Amino acid sequence: MDTVTSLLDSIADVGRDPVRGGYTRPVYSAAELDLRAWFSEQAGRRGLAVDTDRNGILWAWWGEPQRGALVTGSHLDSVPGGGAFDGPLGVASALVAVDVLKARGVEPNRSLAVAVFPEEEGSRFGVACLGSRLLTGAIDADRARNLSDDDGNTLADVARRNGLDPRLLGRDEEALGRIGDFIELHVEQGRGLGEDGPAVAVGSSILGHGRWKLSVHGQGNHAGTTLMEDRQDPMVAAAQIVLAVRQVAAGRRDARATVGRLQPVPGGTNVIASRVDLWLDVRHPDDEVTAGLVEAIHGKAQKIAAFEGCTATLTEESFSGTVQFDAALQRQVGNALPGAPVLATGAGHDAGVLAGFAPSAMVFVRNPTGISHSPEEHVEDADADAGAEALADVLEALL
Amino acid sequence: MDTVTSLLDSIADVGRDPVRGGYTRPVYSAAELDLRAWFSEQAGRRGLAVDTDRNGILWAWWGEPQRGALVTGSHLDSVPGGGAFDGPLGVASALVAVDVLKARGVEPNRSLAVAVFPEEEGSRFGVACLGSRLLTGAIDADRARNLSDDDGNTLADVARRNGLDPRLLGRDEEALGRIGDFIELHVEQGRGLGEDGPAVAVGSSILGHGRWKLSVHGQGNHAGTTLMEDRQDPMVAAAQIVLAVRQVAAGRRDARATVGRLQPVPGGTNVIASRVDLWLDVRHPDDEVTAGLVEAIHGKAQKIAAFEGCTATLTEESFSGTVQFDAALQRQVGNALPGAPVLATGAGHDAGVLAGFAPSAMVFVRNPTGISHSPEEHVEDADADAGAEALADVLEALL
Repeated sequence: MDTVTSLLDSIADVGRDPVRGGYTRPVYSAAELDLRAWFSEQAGRRGLAVDTDRNGILWAWWGEPQRGALVTGSHLDSVPGGGAFDGPLGVASALVAVDVLKARGVEPNRSLAVAVFPEEEGSRFGVACLGSRLLTGAIDADRARNLSDDDGNTLADVARRNGLDPRLLGRDEEALGRIGDFIELHVEQGRGLGEDGPAVAVGSSILGHGRWKLSVHGQGNHAGTTLMEDRQDPMVAAAQIVLAVRQVAAGRRDARATVGRLQPVPGGTNVIASRVDLWLDVRHPDDEVTAGLVEAIHGKAQKIAAFEGCTATLTEESFSGTVQFDAALQRQVGNALPGAPVLATGAGHDAGVLAGFAPSAMVFVRNPTGISHSPEEHVEDADADAGAEALADVLEALL
Repeated sequence: MDTVTSLLDSIADVGRDPVRGGYTRPVYSAAELDLRAWFSEQAGRRGLAVDTDRNGILWAWWGEPQRGALVTGSHLDSVPGGGAFDGPLGVASALVAVDVLKARGVEPNRSLAVAVFPEEEGSRFGVACLGSRLLTGAIDADRARNLSDDDGNTLADVARRNGLDPRLLGRDEEALGRIGDFIELHVEQGRGLGEDGPAVAVGSSILGHGRWKLSVHGQGNHAGTTLMEDRQDPMVAAAQIVLAVRQVAAGRRDARATVGRLQPVPGGTNVIASRVDLWLDVRHPDDEVTAGLVEAIHGKAQKIAAFEGCTATLTEESFSGTVQFDAALQRQVGNALPGAPVLATGAGHDAGVLAGFAPSAMVFVRNPTGISHSPEEHVEDADADAGAEALADVLEALL
C-alpha cells in the first residue's frame, strides 16, 4: 500500500524551482497540470471516478456522486518557491485514507469524494482560494474571468485553453450541494505543534485575511541623466510604504501585515521606475480591525506618495473574514482524534471559504520547522503517516 | 530614399511591451533577433556586406573590411519598457547617412562600417555595453560566459543557441584593429538640448557609472502564521536600504544613485521573502567619489540588515570610469557641425567603452521630453532627419 511519503516522492520532481528553491507550481502551469494528471491516475488506481467540474475542481468519487456526500481534499498548486507539503500533503493523505478505509473494510453510508481545488494560493491570478470562491459564488464570476496573470493572460483565456467553458465559471449549485461535510487535512504552518509535539491537531478557526494591491505611480526616467532633485521616483515612495506597513501592523496586537511581492515597472537597473506595484497581505482576528489597518496603510501611502511627487492607488484583491469552523463537526473530528490539540491558524484555506456553505473542519499535521511557504517547510514521514490514519479515523466516523 | 523616421516606422511593431508600455527588446530575444534580421536586410539593400563577429557584433561594410576603418553605429536592444529611439536611432541614422553620402557622390578614402553592439543596456545579463566590453577585453571572458539571465541561462548557452562559439567570446584583436575612429549617434537622454533647442550636439564626456547587486538574505516564511516580532524580513531591510541609497546620493553634489530593479524571492503575496535582490546604479564624475558612495551604501546596508536579523552582500556587476572623448576627434566633429553645442552625458554608451581603445565621439539628437528609458522618450521627425544629415557631415569629413 502507498504511504503519504511514497506518494509525495512520486511527484518530488514536478515543478522544482531551480532559482528560488523548493517548488513553483502555479495553477494550470505545466507542473500543476502534471500533478492533476498524477492525481487522476492515482484516483483511477483506487477505482475512484474522476470528474472535472466547470470551475476546474477535480472530484474523485468513491460511490456515486450524490447530494450531501462527505468531501475531503486540498490543493496541488503552490506559492513560488514553496514547500513540498502545503497542498499536496492533504491530497496524498486523502488518497491514502481511502486505502486505509478500504483495508479496514469500511462500508460507507454515503459517498466520499476527494477534491482538488485550483489556485488556492492565488499565486497566478492574485485571488487566494479562487476555485472554492468560484464554486460558492464568493467571487463575482465576471470579475474572476477578467483576472489576469503577470503575462496578461486572463482567467477566461487560461480556462478555455484548459478545456473549460469560461462562460460557465462561477457558482455551481449542483457541485456545492454535493458537499455534505468538508474535511481538509493540511500541513501546520506555524509553530503550533512544536518541535516534538503531537502529530496532528484539530482546526478551530482561520484568521481573517485579505490582499490589496497598491500601485505607486511616478515618472519613469533615465538613472544617469536625471538629477536627484528632479525625480519623482515611485521606488523611494514604495520603500517608505513598506516601512509604514510594518509600523501599522506592529502597533496592533495580533495583527500581521506583509509585503512579499513588489514589482518595479519597467524594472531596469538603469531606469528610474515609472510605477511600483506592491501587494499587501493583512490579517487580524477582528475583521473591522483588519479594515482599519488597511485604511491606515492607505492613508500613509497617499501622504508618502504625494510628498515624493507620486500618486498611490489601492485596490482590494480578496478579503475573507475570520472563520470559526462548525462547532458540531469540530466536536465529531475531535472525538475521532482523542488527545489531539485544537489549533487556530493564521493561514487561509479552501475549508475557510467552504465553511460558509457546508460544515467544514480541518486536521493539521505537525511541521517541526514552523516554516511554511518556503523550501524549509517540513513534515516527518511518521507524522505524515499518522496524519493519513487520523484522516481515515475522521472520515470513518462521518461516513 | 528612406528617412530615419521611415526606417524606425518599419520596426515600430517589433518588441512592443503590452504590460510596461514602450519596447522590451533584450539581447537575443525574438524581438532583438528580428531587429538584427531587419538590420542585415537594410544593409544588404545598400550593398553593404554584413558580418557577425565572434562576440555577436554586427558589422555592415561599405568597402572592404580593413584596419583603421571609420565605424559608426549603436545598439538595437532596449531596457524593459524603453523608448523607440535609445539605440535604434543611431543605427537607423547610420544607414540613412550611408544613403546621404552615396547621394552626395562621396568617394571614401577608407572603408566605413555600421556596427550594432549587443546588450548595450545590460538588461538581460546585467552588464551594460557587454558587446563592446567583450570586443575590447574590458570584461573577463570567463566571467562573461558565466553571466546568467533571470531564467538561469548563461551567456555561453545563449551565445551557443545563437550560432556563436562561446569559447571564442572575448577580446578580438582583428575586429578591434578595424576601428580607426568610432562615431556613435544617440538620442539625448536628459534636458540638455531643451524643448526647442538645436537638433544636434557634440558629446564631450560620459559620466562614470557602475552597477552593483545587493542581496539581502532573511528568513522566508508564511505571511499569516508568522508573528511580526518573529520575522527576519529582508523586504523591510531592503526598503530601508532604498532610502539610504537616495540619502547618500542626495548628500553629494553631482551624484546620482538609483534602485530601479528590485526582486523579492520567492515573490508571493502571502509569503515573507527569503531574499530580496536589488540593483544599484551609481554615477559621479569623479570615480573615487563613486567608489566612496558605494562603500557608504554598503556600510549602511549591512547595519540595516543586521538590525533586521538579515545579512546583506554586495557584488559589483560593472564599472566604467568617467570618459573624456578624444579631444582631436571631438574637434573634427565640432568643425563638421558648426554651431552645435557640446554636451556631457550621464548615460553610458558603447562609445565610452571603445574610447579606451580608439578615438571615439558622439553626436546627440534632441529629446524634447528630457525623458529616456521610458515610452515618453521622443525625437521629432525633423530632428531625426537633421541628425542623419549631421552624421553624414561628420562621416564625410572623416572618410
